[in-house]
Amino acid sequence: MQVESTIHSVKGFKVAGVHAGLKADNALDFALIYSEQPCAAAGVFTTNKVKAAPVLVNMEKLDANDSHIRAIAINTRCANACTGQQGIDNAIKMSQIAAESLNIKPDEVLVMSTGVIGTQLPMDKITRGVELAFVALGDDWHSAAQGIMTTDTRPKLASVKMDGYRIAGIAKGAGMIAPNMATMLGFLVTDAKLTPEQAQTALSRASDVTFNRIVVDGDMSTNDSVFLLANGASEKSIESDEELEQFIEALTAVSRQLAQDIVRDGEGVTKFITLSVGGAPSKEDARQIANAIATSPLVKTAFYGEDANWGRIIAAAGRSGVDVNPAQMHLAIKPGERQDDGEWLELFANGVPTDYDEARASAIMREPSIYILLDSGMGGDGVAVIWTCDLSHDYVSINGHYRS
Amino acid sequence: MQVESTIHSVKGFKVAGVHAGLKADNALDFALIYSEQPCAAAGVFTTNKVKAAPVLVNMEKLDANDSHIRAIAINTRCANACTGQQGIDNAIKMSQIAAESLNIKPDEVLVMSTGVIGTQLPMDKITRGVELAFVALGDDWHSAAQGIMTTDTRPKLASVKMDGYRIAGIAKGAGMIAPNMATMLGFLVTDAKLTPEQAQTALSRASDVTFNRIVVDGDMSTNDSVFLLANGASEKSIESDEELEQFIEALTAVSRQLAQDIVRDGEGVTKFITLSVGGAPSKEDARQIANAIATSPLVKTAFYGEDANWGRIIAAAGRSGVDVNPAQMHLAIKPGERQDDGEWLELFANGVPTDYDEARASAIMREPSIYILLDSGMGGDGVAVIWTCDLSHDYVSINGHYRS
Repeated sequence: MQVESTIHSVKGFKVAGVHAGLKADNALDFALIYSEQPCAAAGVFTTNKVKAAPVLVNMEKLDANDSHIRAIAINTRCANACTGQQGIDNAIKMSQIAAESLNIKPDEVLVMSTGVIGTQLPMDKITRGVELAFVALGDDWHSAAQGIMTTDTRPKLASVKMDGYRIAGIAKGAGMIAPNMATMLGFLVTDAKLTPEQAQTALSRASDVTFNRIVVDGDMSTNDSVFLLANGASEKSIESDEELEQFIEALTAVSRQLAQDIVRDGEGVTKFITLSVGGAPSKEDARQIANAIATSPLVKTAFYGEDANWGRIIAAAGRSGVDVNPAQMHLAIKPGERQDDGEWLELFANGVPTDYDEARASAIMREPSIYILLDSGMGGDGVAVIWTCDLSHDYVSINGHYRS
Repeated sequence: MQVESTIHSVKGFKVAGVHAGLKADNALDFALIYSEQPCAAAGVFTTNKVKAAPVLVNMEKLDANDSHIRAIAINTRCANACTGQQGIDNAIKMSQIAAESLNIKPDEVLVMSTGVIGTQLPMDKITRGVELAFVALGDDWHSAAQGIMTTDTRPKLASVKMDGYRIAGIAKGAGMIAPNMATMLGFLVTDAKLTPEQAQTALSRASDVTFNRIVVDGDMSTNDSVFLLANGASEKSIESDEELEQFIEALTAVSRQLAQDIVRDGEGVTKFITLSVGGAPSKEDARQIANAIATSPLVKTAFYGEDANWGRIIAAAGRSGVDVNPAQMHLAIKPGERQDDGEWLELFANGVPTDYDEARASAIMREPSIYILLDSGMGGDGVAVIWTCDLSHDYVSINGHYRS
């Protein structure tokens, strides 16, 4: 299975990315995804207590009507979050405007918004976006991926061709990702035929080990959402458990590539860090330790400074809330993104630093991709792998001045 | 009660700050606090599972012998954390060296270290520090406060004169404070006469609303510690409950000034933020919400960028894990450090932005001190006030290159 960074076409889907006038320059700022046939649809949404209007509207729509979705309309520059009843009304209106253009029912349209919190949707520009996108509908997934970007510097696309069907997706990220409060959005489509239950199972399982491994649990934005639409246009049904597992594996591969691309293109990111934590009593414990490390500003700035300041990693693990055992902790690093490729350098073993070669440690820290392996010392089987990044001057510049 | 930013003298205490050769330049890097009489001693220590050797040694010493402490020796440049048995041995040896110079028992000496994790104490320099400090012992609290500094840009001292006794303290901070993984140290002394139990009660209660309001619970470094030594040299006993309450109030005032000074002198800090969260079911819930906001890189960079991006504050509250009620949330800001001084500008009310004056909001954001008031919308009585700061380019520079 070969994941590509482009999308050729997925049967029965048409997309567009256009300039609706939301952004000041001529950048694409609005996208539309349309299926010629009704789709089994699934969604994974932010757990933030403050949910944006489109999230609330979509959740209700999917609960009521999860096998008839035909389209998703997405705008940038305005998150439609913290916008009260007017925000809800506008999100519903946005779906009505899109439905009218597409000559389908409002119930068949999902909507998503990303951008600044607390401003109302400029409905005239939303209308223009829908009209322009409707005319432009086709196979230009690259433009669609550009049309959902905010502070992303490049579009994110991935696809895979399976036996009888295709899976494709576009995504946007922003912020430091972990802890993420900027919006992460993912839109996955397939021409395989799934039931709504299969679609939800597949999306939940794939997201759990991909999109949710770059976003700290409970640390999501008001808008974070990942969708899956399955229109069945390939006429390939997913029937046996084995076929479903295969589908989930492929969906996971596409999701992983998009998720990792989000980290690589994080605001001001100069390092791609893979962090594997083991030796914990459970997967959840391992993940809690990994999250504490990945969200530590001191750890992140040390990566930016290319300093093998492993003490900050150990200290972050120590305050993670998990009962780590310092006396049995081990920490090793190596260059690259794969656990099985390249030589490990152990920095810390059984509670004390090893007699490692500082020059070699520095050389690894200068690499663009670094793999970190931490044994939390508790002797358990719980393992978690997450992807994270450094914290740079540019991150501060971008986020100090994003809104204005 | 007037808290001063200097320390004249506290009966029976002698201090020194010297250059032991730990730092490369001639900066003071070692401090000694000595009492002519045995002290009732109390300590509040980091909750990090990875505790530095001096923390472990002190905890044991205070448990066994909390009314006979005579001295505290403190070195910089090396945290003596993640140093295994040799680190423990060195911490014990450091107390022996100090005891020998001072002609007291090793059990009567506490030790503390701050600096880089994972290197062993340079015992020759520790010995030199003790020798030089012993000779220099006197009333120079300013030097002692300088002798414990790491990335602090200025020494932190506070004292108060009560009826019959004095309370004084020095402190050091570093890092972004919240979440703090750099070391925060506080050394408080009084010539009042307290029992060890009174000392511990007073220190715990004072720290809980001061030092622990700038450091997120469970987010402490391997070394964070605050000490109180009470030598009784004033012959003023704290006897009645009323006297104890008065003492705690004074200790809290001294601790609050030191804690706030740590925030003001945080790495790269350009803004001093007071954050008051109310309307929560409990104090703990309010604090959890406040901590989520204060540790958010997006919130902190918005303050640095002087951008009234209140949506990031609301979103951080939403992902705090507390069941906040967005529809009833209120957010207001004003310049300054006092809740009762100056005019509030309400930005967000009942789940939607107010029609506030953007120019006025920007003017407040340009102030060096900003007060934030958030009603979490749950209708409860739980309130928490914490002090925090922005996240600047300089923070990244300092922490990207601190170790090297």
